[in-house]
Amino acid sequence: MSTFRSVRGMRDFLPEEAKIMRYIEAKARKTAELYGYKEIITPVVESYELLAAKAGEEVRLRMYAFKDLGDRMVALRPEFTPSVARLVATTLRNEPRPFRLFCVGSLYRYDEPQQGRYREFWQSNFEVMGSNKPEADAEIIMLTNSLMESVGLKNYTLKVGHVGVLRGIFNQEKMDEKTENQVMQLMDRKQYDDAFRLVEEAGASKKCITTLQELIELKGYKVFDIVEKMRKSVEKYKQSVAAVENLQEILKLVFESGCKINMRLDAGFARGLEYYTGIILEIYVPELDIALGGGGRYDRLIELFGGESTPAVGIAHGIDRIMLAMQKQNVTLQKEEKKNVMVIPAKDELKGEALKIANLLRNAGILVEVEVMGRKISKALEDADRRKIAYAIIVGGRELKEDAVMLRNLMKRQQNVIKIEKIAEKIKGDCS
Amino acid sequence: MSTFRSVRGMRDFLPEEAKIMRYIEAKARKTAELYGYKEIITPVVESYELLAAKAGEEVRLRMYAFKDLGDRMVALRPEFTPSVARLVATTLRNEPRPFRLFCVGSLYRYDEPQQGRYREFWQSNFEVMGSNKPEADAEIIMLTNSLMESVGLKNYTLKVGHVGVLRGIFNQEKMDEKTENQVMQLMDRKQYDDAFRLVEEAGASKKCITTLQELIELKGYKVFDIVEKMRKSVEKYKQSVAAVENLQEILKLVFESGCKINMRLDAGFARGLEYYTGIILEIYVPELDIALGGGGRYDRLIELFGGESTPAVGIAHGIDRIMLAMQKQNVTLQKEEKKNVMVIPAKDELKGEALKIANLLRNAGILVEVEVMGRKISKALEDADRRKIAYAIIVGGRELKEDAVMLRNLMKRQQNVIKIEKIAEKIKGDCS
Repeated sequence: MSTFRSVRGMRDFLPEEAKIMRYIEAKARKTAELYGYKEIITPVVESYELLAAKAGEEVRLRMYAFKDLGDRMVALRPEFTPSVARLVATTLRNEPRPFRLFCVGSLYRYDEPQQGRYREFWQSNFEVMGSNKPEADAEIIMLTNSLMESVGLKNYTLKVGHVGVLRGIFNQEKMDEKTENQVMQLMDRKQYDDAFRLVEEAGASKKCITTLQELIELKGYKVFDIVEKMRKSVEKYKQSVAAVENLQEILKLVFESGCKINMRLDAGFARGLEYYTGIILEIYVPELDIALGGGGRYDRLIELFGGESTPAVGIAHGIDRIMLAMQKQNVTLQKEEKKNVMVIPAKDELKGEALKIANLLRNAGILVEVEVMGRKISKALEDADRRKIAYAIIVGGRELKEDAVMLRNLMKRQQNVIKIEKIAEKIKGDCS
Repeated sequence: MSTFRSVRGMRDFLPEEAKIMRYIEAKARKTAELYGYKEIITPVVESYELLAAKAGEEVRLRMYAFKDLGDRMVALRPEFTPSVARLVATTLRNEPRPFRLFCVGSLYRYDEPQQGRYREFWQSNFEVMGSNKPEADAEIIMLTNSLMESVGLKNYTLKVGHVGVLRGIFNQEKMDEKTENQVMQLMDRKQYDDAFRLVEEAGASKKCITTLQELIELKGYKVFDIVEKMRKSVEKYKQSVAAVENLQEILKLVFESGCKINMRLDAGFARGLEYYTGIILEIYVPELDIALGGGGRYDRLIELFGGESTPAVGIAHGIDRIMLAMQKQNVTLQKEEKKNVMVIPAKDELKGEALKIANLLRNAGILVEVEVMGRKISKALEDADRRKIAYAIIVGGRELKEDAVMLRNLMKRQQNVIKIEKIAEKIKGDCS
C-alpha cells in the first residue's frame, strides 16, 4: 500500500489558491477583452522542432521532450509564443493584420524548483502581430499595467531594455549570430566578464567593449535621461542609434498615454530567448527576485516558421507568480457575499425531498450542499457550523405536510419554520 | 524555411471556438459553485505509477508516458480521478469528509483521432469523496443535468449501469480480479462472445452465463421496470441483488428530486476503467456516437493510493465534446451586446493622445482597440467596418484643442464631434 506523491516540481493548488489562480486568469481575460485581444487555445504538446527553433539554449535544454507512441519528437510547451507564431504562419496566414491574440494555460520547464519557480507554471500571454509601430509596444506595456492594477498589486516595476541596441553593435562588429546569442545570454545572466571575453575573442573592436561597459552602467528610473545617455554611448553604431530612438518613442507614448507604470530602464538588459529583436520587458515586485512576467518585440519569428514577414510584440504574465506577489503584498480578493445553504433530511425517506428543495434553491441562484453522509441532524449542523455555512434547512415530515421546512440561520443561531416557496426570497433578502 | 505544424491529434481552438470552450468551462464552474464543489488544480504531469495504477489496459497503453530529465517515469494525465484521489489520500488526508471537488483542464490519450476525439481533450470533473450514500450518486446525476441544461443542450440521454451487479456475479463465481477486469472490458466493447468464452474458461457456472446473457438484453428508458427485471435475473447472487437495490435507490432519488434527465438503463453496461465499484454513467446526444461525459462510483481507489478507506463517486464532462454537441444541436451563445471602439490618431504626433483616450474608455469598461498599423484614417475605417466594430474615434488636432474628438457610429454611419469626457456616457447610452 504505497503512498503516491506528485512529481517533483509539480504542484497542486488547493481550493483557496485555485480560487486566486482563476481570479487572476479572469482578470487577464477581462484585460484581453478591454484591449481587443481574441483568445485562442493551443495544445500543450507541440513538435520539439517548433519549440526548440528559436528558444535560447537555457530553455531548450530544460524542455520536457520525448517521443510519442507514433515516434514523433514532441515536447511540452515552455512558452506560448512559438505556438502563436505557428498559427499565424499557417492557419491565420491569409487573415488581415493586425492580430491581437490572447492565451492562458500551463507551461513546462525542467528548472530547479524554488520559491515561485515550478516545473509546471501558468501564464497569460498577449501578442500583437503585424505592427512594427511603437504604439503596439506601448500597448503591451499599458495592458501589463492594467492587469497588475486590476489584480490589486500595489507596488511593481517594469524593467525595460532594447535588444536592438546591443544587436546593432554586434552587427556592425560583424559578429556571427551564434556568438551574438551567447553574449546576450551571458549578459542576461549578468556574467559580464565572460561576455566581454567572448566579444574580444570574436575580434570586436576596443570601442565595442568600451561601449558595452558604458551601457551596462546605464540604468535607473529616469528613463528619458538614460535614453539620452544611451544615444551618446552608441552614436557610432547606426542601427543602435535607431534602436535607441525606437525605445525613446515607445517610452514617450507610454508617458503620454497617462499610464503611470513605474519603469526602470536598463541598457545592458538582455533576455534568455533568442528571438527578441526590439524592446524587452520584465515585471518585478520588490518582495520577489523572480520576474512576474516578461516579453518583448520579435519581428522575425513568424518568417522563421514559414509565414509572411510579420513584426510582433508580446508579453506573458506568470499567473502563479502574480498570486505569490499578491500574497506577499497582502492583497485579498474582493469578497463576494454569497450565502450558502446545507439541506439536511431529518430521516432517510425524506432524502428525495431534500434533493428537490436543493434544486429549487439552485435554480434561484443559491449555493446549496446536500447532507450526503447520512449523519444525524446535530452532527450535520456541527459540520455546517465548522465550515461557516450560512444556513441549514432541515427537511422534516411534520413541516413538509404544510409545504414547509425549518430554516436555521447558523450565524444568528435563529430558526423558523418557513414555506418552501419563500426560502429563496428570504435568503436573498438576508444577503442584501 | 520549413512550415511547422501542430502535432497529429492535437488541436488549436481559434477565437470563435475558444470562446465556446471558455463558456462551457464557466458554466461548469458555476455548476460546481451551486452544488458546493471546491475547485482544485492538479498538474498535467503525474507519476506513471499513479496514473497506471487502476486505469484499464486501454487507457494504460495509450498514455503519453516518458522519463523526465531526472529519470522519473512520468505521464500526461489521461483523466483527473487518480490526481484527485492522490490529493485525498495525502494532503487532504486529515480533513473532515465529505469533499466535493471540482477540476477542469486538459487531458491526454494517444487515441486514433476522429470526430470529437483528440489526443488532447478538455474536461470538467466533479467528485464527492467520503459518502457511500445513494444521494451522493444522485447528486452527480443532477449536476450533470444542470450542466447540460445550462449550456443549452436540448436533447441528451444519460446511460446508466451498475458495475456492482456484474462484479457480484463474478465474485460469487470466484473469478480472479484480472479475468474479471478483462471480461468487463470486453463487455464495455460489446464483444460479448469473447467475454462469455473467457467466463466459461474461468470455470464459471452455466447459471452465470445465462444470467449475463439475460442482463445484456435488459436495457431501455423504463428504468424502474428494468431494475425489477435485473433483480429477478440476479436473485441467486447476493451481492448483485444489493447492487440492484442500490441502483434502484439512486434512480428513485433522482426521480424524487424532480430532475427530468432522460435516463436509459443498460444492465450489461461496463466502462473501461477498472476502478469502478458501483453505478456507472455516460452522457450522450443523438447526433454523436461518442459519450459527452462519463463517471461512476469507485469506493476503493483512495485506499489503493494509501489513503483511508473513502467511498467516492464522480463524473467528467468533455468540454470539447459538449462544444461539438452544441454545434450539432445549433445552440448559440447568449450574445452579450458589448460595443467596441477603434481609436485612430489622425497623425503620428497624436498617437499618445489616442492611447490616452483609449485608456480612459477602458477604465469606463468599454472595449477599445487602438489603430497600430500606421494606416490612413480611411484604411483604418475600412478595417473597422470589415470587423464589425461599432464605433471609431478619430483623434484630430483641431477637435483636440476643444478637448473633443470625432465619434463615428459605424453601424448608423453617423459622425459627430464630441467632448472626450462625454464619449463613455454616449457609447454606453447607445448600448442600452
